[in-house]
Amino acid sequence: MKLYDMQMAPNPRRVRVFLAEKGIDNVELVPVDISKREHKSDGYMAGVNRMGQVPTLELDDGSHISESMAICRYFEEIQPDPPLFGRDAKEKAEVEMWSRRAELNIMTCVAAGFRHTSDFFKGLEDQVPAWGELNKGKAPERFTWLDGVLADREFVAGANYSVADITALIAVDFARVVGLKVTDEWPNLARWHGAMSARPSAKA
Amino acid sequence: MKLYDMQMAPNPRRVRVFLAEKGIDNVELVPVDISKREHKSDGYMAGVNRMGQVPTLELDDGSHISESMAICRYFEEIQPDPPLFGRDAKEKAEVEMWSRRAELNIMTCVAAGFRHTSDFFKGLEDQVPAWGELNKGKAPERFTWLDGVLADREFVAGANYSVADITALIAVDFARVVGLKVTDEWPNLARWHGAMSARPSAKA
Repeated sequence: MKLYDMQMAPNPRRVRVFLAEKGIDNVELVPVDISKREHKSDGYMAGVNRMGQVPTLELDDGSHISESMAICRYFEEIQPDPPLFGRDAKEKAEVEMWSRRAELNIMTCVAAGFRHTSDFFKGLEDQVPAWGELNKGKAPERFTWLDGVLADREFVAGANYSVADITALIAVDFARVVGLKVTDEWPNLARWHGAMSARPSAKA
Repeated sequence: MKLYDMQMAPNPRRVRVFLAEKGIDNVELVPVDISKREHKSDGYMAGVNRMGQVPTLELDDGSHISESMAICRYFEEIQPDPPLFGRDAKEKAEVEMWSRRAELNIMTCVAAGFRHTSDFFKGLEDQVPAWGELNKGKAPERFTWLDGVLADREFVAGANYSVADITALIAVDFARVVGLKVTDEWPNLARWHGAMSARPSAKA
């Protein structure tokens, strides 16, 4: 299997952290240079992903899966241990709920703040600066939201480490692109973020 | 079990269609009137969903699950038949991929077009009209995208009906709020939309 990857982007990192937590090390990483628009090249779009998306997983039968959560789901199915999408019906629903909340509340906000204000995305995106600034301005209150969630629990979805922690970690770390970092202003978030960052998978 | 529901909104409809496809009829629907801001009332936020979200599922143990996909996932787990999230590892990943693509490409676009331009959301949303207009303008090309996807397949995720069809159906139908309807301009989309709309679940 091959994973078409991009080192600095958050969604490919979600898959790499997930693989590290699973202890899966037989996936070849193929770097794609977004700054050179390799993901929009004819070869990539014809052979790997017609929508020009990274990450994309290439299976041994030559077929492709994209969307980072779909790729994680594939590995959860072929290697259930350790379970990262929940253990029973209720926990599976809670993991999905918290992973989506982390994605919608933090990642979507940070990404919009970045894509609509940065020079990097000029020409790649129909930028609406007012939309970018609104989202940038909201990012700190999203940290406050997550800090509140973590007040009474060790992990984002509750008692167990899960893909919801991975989604939240990559979103929180990616907030650097709008100038936001975890500080002691958010004590629960800081405790959780320290614990997540200390896991070997965080370096993936 | 109770489902806090809102008749006109797309995400509660996703759950109702899903339940109808599963043949699950023991969930009490509790209407929540968004126009009266019942979902942001003290009672709802304290007792059901502190983020003021609809739909929310109340389990018999009194706990709550929100996010429509998380609610669907719960029902998939407690009643696997018929499978709507895929049958094996690869199909499960493909269903997740296509459901996300339908959500990100169509629903997110339509919802942004509506929320940022309509009078209904004045005061409920920090509106950025330029962002709304940009999304409204892109909605037809998203129909064209889905029409292309459906050129060589019966269902959104491939050979089998799945939650990806439900996600796409509620998004396509919701596009009415930005003045967009399925026409013969998109023949594959029109064929699929006709078939989906003819299923009894579409009335849920």
